[in-house]
Amino acid sequence: MSSRAPDTPARHLPENLGVLLREPFLATSERLHEYFAEHGHPDVRPPHGNVFQFLDDGGTRVSVLAERAQVTKQSMAELVAHLERHGYVKRTPDPGDRRAKLVQATPRGAELYALAREFVVETEAEWERRLGKAKLRQLRRLLEDLNAAI
Amino acid sequence: MSSRAPDTPARHLPENLGVLLREPFLATSERLHEYFAEHGHPDVRPPHGNVFQFLDDGGTRVSVLAERAQVTKQSMAELVAHLERHGYVKRTPDPGDRRAKLVQATPRGAELYALAREFVVETEAEWERRLGKAKLRQLRRLLEDLNAAI
Repeated sequence: MSSRAPDTPARHLPENLGVLLREPFLATSERLHEYFAEHGHPDVRPPHGNVFQFLDDGGTRVSVLAERAQVTKQSMAELVAHLERHGYVKRTPDPGDRRAKLVQATPRGAELYALAREFVVETEAEWERRLGKAKLRQLRRLLEDLNAAI
Repeated sequence: MSSRAPDTPARHLPENLGVLLREPFLATSERLHEYFAEHGHPDVRPPHGNVFQFLDDGGTRVSVLAERAQVTKQSMAELVAHLERHGYVKRTPDPGDRRAKLVQATPRGAELYALAREFVVETEAEWERRLGKAKLRQLRRLLEDLNAAI
C-alpha cells in the first residue's frame, strides 16, 4: 500500500468508499503477481490482470475486455499481444463474426488460474487471521449485499 | 454490472472477495464518467480515471501513475497525452529531476475533482437508501479495518 500516495486529491473526497474498495483490491493484485513471479511466471505483471480477470471461458474480444477492465482498446491490445508472445493467450477466429478474433487462455494461461485459486485461499485465510473470522464473514455478506444492490 | 460476464474463469475462484471489492468500484467508476459526460466532459472516459485517481497535488510522474494504477507506462502515457490534448492535465518539469516531467491537473482538470466530490456524496446517499444506514456504516468500518490490516 505504501506505493500509493496518501495525498492525492482523490483521497480528499469525503468518506470515499470507492477508495476503500479499490485499495485492498489493488494491493492484493500486486501480491498475486508477485506470487505468479515466484511460481515461474515473471512476465505476467499487474497490468495483465486486466486481461485474465475478464476473460470468458469461450474467449472474449479485445474490445469487450477493454470495456470490462476500463482500459482503452489500444492498451488492451498491447496487454494481449504481450501475453500472446509469452504463450499465455491465443487469438482464434470468432465463430459469430469472421472479421473478429477471440482471446482465449492457453494451457499455460490456465496455470495462472490454478495459481490464483491457491493464492485467493491463502489470502483470505490471512485476512481471516488479521480481521477475525466473524468480521471477515460480515464483510463478505455486506459486500454481497452491496453488489446485489447496485 | 451487466456488461461484465458472469462466466469468466476468475469468477469460479472460491469465495473471491477480490471480485466483490472490484465490481462496485468499477460500476461506480462507469457512472462517474457518465456524470462527467452529462456535465460537459464527454472526453474523460473510464480509463482516464486511472490518471486522476492517482495524481498527487504537486504533480506525479507517468511511471509512478502507471505503477499505482497497475497499467503499463505506455498505456499511462497515452491516457495522459489524451487528457493533455483536451486541457485536463499539463506536464511541467520535475524540480527533483530536470529530465523528468510531472503530470498536474489544470483548472479544467480540477473541475473534475469538484464534480467527483458531488458524485461521491450522491452515490453514497443512494447506497445508504438501498442498503440502509446501519449496514453502510458497518461496511465502511469493516473496509477501514481491512485497509488498515493489509
